[in-house]
Amino acid sequence: MRKIDVSNLEDITIGASLLGSGGGGDPYIGKLLAIEAIQDCGPVSLLDPDEVPDDMFIAPFAVMGAPSVLTEKAVGGNEYKTLYDTINTFFGKKIDAIMPLEAGGVNSMFPIAAAARLGLPLIDADGMGRAFPELQMLTFTIGGVNATPMALADEKGNSVLFNTITNKWTEDLARAVTMTCGGSAPIALYCMDGKTLKQYGIKRIVSRSQTLGQAIREIKHGAGTPEENFLKVSGGYKLFRGKITDVLREVRGAFNFGKAILDGLGEYKGQHALIEFQNENLVASVEGEIKATTPDLICLVDTETFIPIPTDAFKYGKRVLVVGLACFKLWRSPKGIELTGPRYFGYDSDYIPIEIRAQGGS
Amino acid sequence: MRKIDVSNLEDITIGASLLGSGGGGDPYIGKLLAIEAIQDCGPVSLLDPDEVPDDMFIAPFAVMGAPSVLTEKAVGGNEYKTLYDTINTFFGKKIDAIMPLEAGGVNSMFPIAAAARLGLPLIDADGMGRAFPELQMLTFTIGGVNATPMALADEKGNSVLFNTITNKWTEDLARAVTMTCGGSAPIALYCMDGKTLKQYGIKRIVSRSQTLGQAIREIKHGAGTPEENFLKVSGGYKLFRGKITDVLREVRGAFNFGKAILDGLGEYKGQHALIEFQNENLVASVEGEIKATTPDLICLVDTETFIPIPTDAFKYGKRVLVVGLACFKLWRSPKGIELTGPRYFGYDSDYIPIEIRAQGGS
Repeated sequence: MRKIDVSNLEDITIGASLLGSGGGGDPYIGKLLAIEAIQDCGPVSLLDPDEVPDDMFIAPFAVMGAPSVLTEKAVGGNEYKTLYDTINTFFGKKIDAIMPLEAGGVNSMFPIAAAARLGLPLIDADGMGRAFPELQMLTFTIGGVNATPMALADEKGNSVLFNTITNKWTEDLARAVTMTCGGSAPIALYCMDGKTLKQYGIKRIVSRSQTLGQAIREIKHGAGTPEENFLKVSGGYKLFRGKITDVLREVRGAFNFGKAILDGLGEYKGQHALIEFQNENLVASVEGEIKATTPDLICLVDTETFIPIPTDAFKYGKRVLVVGLACFKLWRSPKGIELTGPRYFGYDSDYIPIEIRAQGGS
Repeated sequence: MRKIDVSNLEDITIGASLLGSGGGGDPYIGKLLAIEAIQDCGPVSLLDPDEVPDDMFIAPFAVMGAPSVLTEKAVGGNEYKTLYDTINTFFGKKIDAIMPLEAGGVNSMFPIAAAARLGLPLIDADGMGRAFPELQMLTFTIGGVNATPMALADEKGNSVLFNTITNKWTEDLARAVTMTCGGSAPIALYCMDGKTLKQYGIKRIVSRSQTLGQAIREIKHGAGTPEENFLKVSGGYKLFRGKITDVLREVRGAFNFGKAILDGLGEYKGQHALIEFQNENLVASVEGEIKATTPDLICLVDTETFIPIPTDAFKYGKRVLVVGLACFKLWRSPKGIELTGPRYFGYDSDYIPIEIRAQGGS
């Protein structure tokens, strides 16, 4: 067990943004939420999964919806308590600890804010090891955990509790409510005991985010060029370097859909890359050839600072390095690929692991 | 207290269909639901509001959604118990009695089926005295009663509990879920104590439906012509008689929107009438002049049998009598007109009571 205080947030949010693969929300907004909560209520205890008792009652907290909406439609402040009360009432017992659901600029910070505000510890684990756009895309779904009873609370004071027959139905019903609430809403779901968490959770994701964030912040102090250092600390495969020259985007169904076109720089001069996203980056292609697909992580970072750029911040003129990171192993199982592979999102391509694509493309 | 058995259902369903003002669902489907439940579980005790103790815990049951969907998407059977359990869990006490929310072919029968299946009495009252398309359009809203906690259960086994800041938010969030569930879903809402019911409920609506239904069934035995008899027993104002020559309809937002055009018969020969509806009939015009508007009841009945015709059964060639009935007095209050008057539905017309319009139009 260690404490997370305000001084740790910058690193966690940078690292989580990288793992967010373009999604998970704006890191600046996320950081503000967590800073304010820790300043008001004190540091948060971070529990290593190995320290978690089997019977601990854990509630993952997140914000559902389109990241671009989330940036402008703030969390009101009462949602933490409403989610807490709703879950407690329906389960007939009290939440012992909060956990993130996914990594990302907001979705790694919101659970820290919730833990601070509710005076509960935070578990150093999540259920994606990255961000995905839909609620059924959790390692816990692979493990047969029911996403419901799930609570949703909006900033106006409305709340909803869902009980569904599948985790895809959770997504569908909660998505409809989130859209009606304006496009984003805080949620608590996949409530589980410590034993289940240790079996299917992705362990030490908060610590990993912090280590990554610190390494990115200190990237210019390393032995090689900053880009070499970045690829080393992130374990990423370099897919492209270029300037964003076009962004198409659409907010639909409480998702940000869109694509960005990049003009190559340096050794990629004359080439073009295409990044397609649904909240998160789904497919990266160079000159029409797929270089990486979901569930592997596709991340765009600034070519100077190596700070990750979420999809809602893509804009003309940004110079970016595109890297691919291997996803958590459970996503490469048949069930994992069925849930999050390129075919689920409508791409006519099998999932080929990033390291194999990297060899083929060299 | 008296018993409702299978022999009473025909009359209740005919009368309720008239009060449904075109909405509230198909009477045949409704009757089947109630017949089966009473055959399985025995007759239902009908409690007069005056017999209801002040502290009785009452749950109104209904089916939300587009009537045309409801006719093809059946109630599964487990929804009664799911609604019952969800409400009990959230309120921390057990439902003592079921109540209808509105009058209509399905929505007067579904609560009878629920009462039979759950072994509970039914209260002889509702919150509309007719049918309206949206969940906030209840006399209880005028009385300041919160529609939530509200439960929704679909036939697949999904369920949702809503807590909202206004009854319009209840409508908006529940509508979104109902659409996602396929366009119709059973619900329980406006749970209240006996005291509140007696203050704001529309009393003896089940008995009134039964009396009306019996009178319609025996219409040819009266002293005058069947039409005279019908107008007398219903208290209706004759607005038009004609043949349906065109029906436009659209299922949108889990509502049936549309209009019907009628060619005059008899003394109306050469004239045309227009009936506009959103689940329920909203406005009736003859030769471009408004003859009746919501919240007064606009009802189309067969010219031979005087059986009411719901909006989802409008079709070319049907010969109908159009009648207007005065609505319950609370709907004529400023708050009632704000909730259900023609301007709420987008018509540029003040509400003028049917009896005043009838004088002006004579």
